[in-house]
Amino acid sequence: MLDAVLSQSLTRLVVSTRGRRFHDITADVEERVAQAGVRTGLCTLHLQHTSASLLIQENADPDVRRDFETFFSRLVPDGAPMFVHTVEGDDDMAAHVRTALTTVNLSVPIADGHLALGTWQGIYLWEHRQSAHRRTLVIHILGE
Amino acid sequence: MLDAVLSQSLTRLVVSTRGRRFHDITADVEERVAQAGVRTGLCTLHLQHTSASLLIQENADPDVRRDFETFFSRLVPDGAPMFVHTVEGDDDMAAHVRTALTTVNLSVPIADGHLALGTWQGIYLWEHRQSAHRRTLVIHILGE
Amino acid sequence: MLDAVLSQSLTRLVVSTRGRRFHDITADVEERVAQAGVRTGLCTLHLQHTSASLLIQENADPDVRRDFETFFSRLVPDGAPMFVHTVEGDDDMAAHVRTALTTVNLSVPIADGHLALGTWQGIYLWEHRQSAHRRTLVIHILGE
Repeated sequence: MLDAVLSQSLTRLVVSTRGRRFHDITADVEERVAQAGVRTGLCTLHLQHTSASLLIQENADPDVRRDFETFFSRLVPDGAPMFVHTVEGDDDMAAHVRTALTTVNLSVPIADGHLALGTWQGIYLWEHRQSAHRRTLVIHILGE
Repeated sequence: MLDAVLSQSLTRLVVSTRGRRFHDITADVEERVAQAGVRTGLCTLHLQHTSASLLIQENADPDVRRDFETFFSRLVPDGAPMFVHTVEGDDDMAAHVRTALTTVNLSVPIADGHLALGTWQGIYLWEHRQSAHRRTLVIHILGE
Repeated sequence: MLDAVLSQSLTRLVVSTRGRRFHDITADVEERVAQAGVRTGLCTLHLQHTSASLLIQENADPDVRRDFETFFSRLVPDGAPMFVHTVEGDDDMAAHVRTALTTVNLSVPIADGHLALGTWQGIYLWEHRQSAHRRTLVIHILGE
């Protein structure tokens, strides 16, 4: 166990999305980790929305992101007749379900001053609404 | 970074469910945060079960919860012939799968003495069994 | 609130998988908690891969794991014609989607020196590729 005194920081990150797609936020989160000056610790991201989500996935091949979109669009079709909640548009209830099937919060350890992600992992904000939105993440960083 | 000494608390929350539906536990968790006296920190919830889950979702429109139920009931039908594990009833294996597709633990930052949830976010315990159950959450609060 | 000084540890756990199946890592994680000497705290697991995932599920009945495999194999079929990303084999894109539908990180509180899991809960590394792989987890333990 490490004996140094732990400290924490809490910041916000605002992402302007361009509609339904993956937005790579890895570099933005890394920047917050660097600013916090933590070498060893834990970084928790919480997205304050119910129709966009967080996903750690392959950062190399754009086909992977395209296939994700294809799969989820078929699994949870926009405007599916089963949905009652349609006041905010055909894509709204589908966006809620897609969010629930993925997640709105993540905790990633920090090692040697960086997020302890695997070689092929990136952190994505996945916008599930068709139109552009302004999304806010709360970032909690703890460590020493 | 904040320099004050961090402390932690660990408590349990028992929820008596009324069968398959969403149970809003936001106020119960907020109460634990207030009791811990933490202004800035991190709150982690862990549900100690395999047939109920935790979900952060829209807290405004009951139609959203109804549509979630509809979607998941079709995606993972109770008593689906593909399932072998049926000793505890038709809804048991479906409950396990629904739990895996969502989650049993969540970490939400604490800001200004409150969970840093978005305006439209509530924390729900989603009971996936048809009958009422007594469910236990472990709540870890860390901060200053 | 507990006033003792918090400390943290960061270790790695390597799991050699035997292809697509559940690998119970509960005892390995418990061993790390014991080594860290933490009685009360929080344990966060992060899996550094995009085609295997972490799952807390029923540890008693092997039929549950078999049914999980059946369900996910039908929901996300290997080699589905909708997928474009096929360079690494028929099971690769399916493995990414299965990972996204579950999770790569988990945070479980520590109580009385043990993971605060429910009686029926085990922690599994779920290998989604057909062939054996070497998978690395980063384990962050915090507490006193």
